[in-house]
Amino acid sequence: MENISSVQNQKVKNWKKLATKKQRTKEGSYLLDGWHLVQEALNYDAPIKAIMVTQEQFDMHSEELQKVSEIFIVTFEVMQSITDTVTPQGIAAEVGIPAVYTEVPNELAGTWLLMDEVQDPGNMGTMIRTADAAGFTGVVAGNKTADIFSPKVVRAMQGSQFHIQVKQGSTLDWIDMLHAEGIPVYGTQLNKEAVNYLDVEKSNSFALIMGNEGNGVQPAVLERTSQNLYIPIAGKAESLNVAVSAGILMFALKK
Amino acid sequence: MENISSVQNQKVKNWKKLATKKQRTKEGSYLLDGWHLVQEALNYDAPIKAIMVTQEQFDMHSEELQKVSEIFIVTFEVMQSITDTVTPQGIAAEVGIPAVYTEVPNELAGTWLLMDEVQDPGNMGTMIRTADAAGFTGVVAGNKTADIFSPKVVRAMQGSQFHIQVKQGSTLDWIDMLHAEGIPVYGTQLNKEAVNYLDVEKSNSFALIMGNEGNGVQPAVLERTSQNLYIPIAGKAESLNVAVSAGILMFALKK
Repeated sequence: MENISSVQNQKVKNWKKLATKKQRTKEGSYLLDGWHLVQEALNYDAPIKAIMVTQEQFDMHSEELQKVSEIFIVTFEVMQSITDTVTPQGIAAEVGIPAVYTEVPNELAGTWLLMDEVQDPGNMGTMIRTADAAGFTGVVAGNKTADIFSPKVVRAMQGSQFHIQVKQGSTLDWIDMLHAEGIPVYGTQLNKEAVNYLDVEKSNSFALIMGNEGNGVQPAVLERTSQNLYIPIAGKAESLNVAVSAGILMFALKK
Repeated sequence: MENISSVQNQKVKNWKKLATKKQRTKEGSYLLDGWHLVQEALNYDAPIKAIMVTQEQFDMHSEELQKVSEIFIVTFEVMQSITDTVTPQGIAAEVGIPAVYTEVPNELAGTWLLMDEVQDPGNMGTMIRTADAAGFTGVVAGNKTADIFSPKVVRAMQGSQFHIQVKQGSTLDWIDMLHAEGIPVYGTQLNKEAVNYLDVEKSNSFALIMGNEGNGVQPAVLERTSQNLYIPIAGKAESLNVAVSAGILMFALKK
């Protein structure tokens, strides 16, 4: 164990920089903030590279932290700096981004959520958490989505990255691979000419594509799907929030 | 029409203060930001007390704005000050909070979403927008929820306050009134002993209660409902986001 009390410490500076995509790519790791997420990482044997913890929090969780070799006892100010929050929770972790993150799984059968150009980190995280709750096999972040390991997405997914497969890749490539396995791929559209989601039979093997908050799923993607679905709007709202739509569809389509 | 170029102008200061509950209560009005929401207010004959607009935006929308008597041409800096945004959209409106806001409607038959101690303004607004999309009759904000006319809720509800009934009141009082009319009231719970929502028949007359993000629906409320529902969690997530849950339930329960 090492004590760090200076925000000028190089390690502190590096942890703080994990808020940026550049640093996450360089280090191959990201930051978890708060005991709940750190506990999930411990429970699921995630590759924890370091734990940064105040003395107070360490005393509360010393037993669970025994299996971690790299523990840094830090001051409140260091914690504020690392997590960029005024009232930090007092424990954070640097966790390795799984090597399989960009690899295609051997087995594609199952239920997948493909996020195509979803921009808002809160929506991304909520969709991943919802996919987990719905019992989905995994999620795929298309190349132009928000970054899954950014602080806001990590906060919103509430540990679901440890429960289900989280992948990054090209939406079009994934569609081709799923088609090759005979797995239906459903696009989503704000278009009454599309298929009412209530008319699709529940199943344990399909992929669902959700699109950008403003523009929906790209036309080039919609052209390659098995079917495109819509959620009938009964009232006068123009659209639904993308994470809410994803929730309605995942729970309605999954057997 | 009047021109205002100083952020020290008393009117500007008052509009800016509409971000606070205190000022909204005093004036009986709230602020809409951006052409989309102003257009909705115009389309639905909302009580517009004033339009604040840059010359550029005024020129773009002068025809639609003809029916408004109180128009103030303001500078970009004034717009920034009123809306508290760095890149304001250039048009905003002061709109009256409907007098019926706290009144109980004569007719209760229909579908209602009761929000009980929901704290996050984004969740509140998204739930109201979703209730609108699902064709609900109205929403009721319990006394301890976030304020419906706060800027963040207004942004997230995207004009749904003009489409469906938006009410404020005591959740317990509403439950009693609905019961008196023979309308079923469904609580929601993270509890497998509760009723699976898939076992409830679709209907056009019921109320659904969603609770606080951290604590769910209060026990005192759950005790008074007709039935309490849960959404089965198939994966390892501990819970669903409240706005996502509300979406799943509203679309599944409404005929």
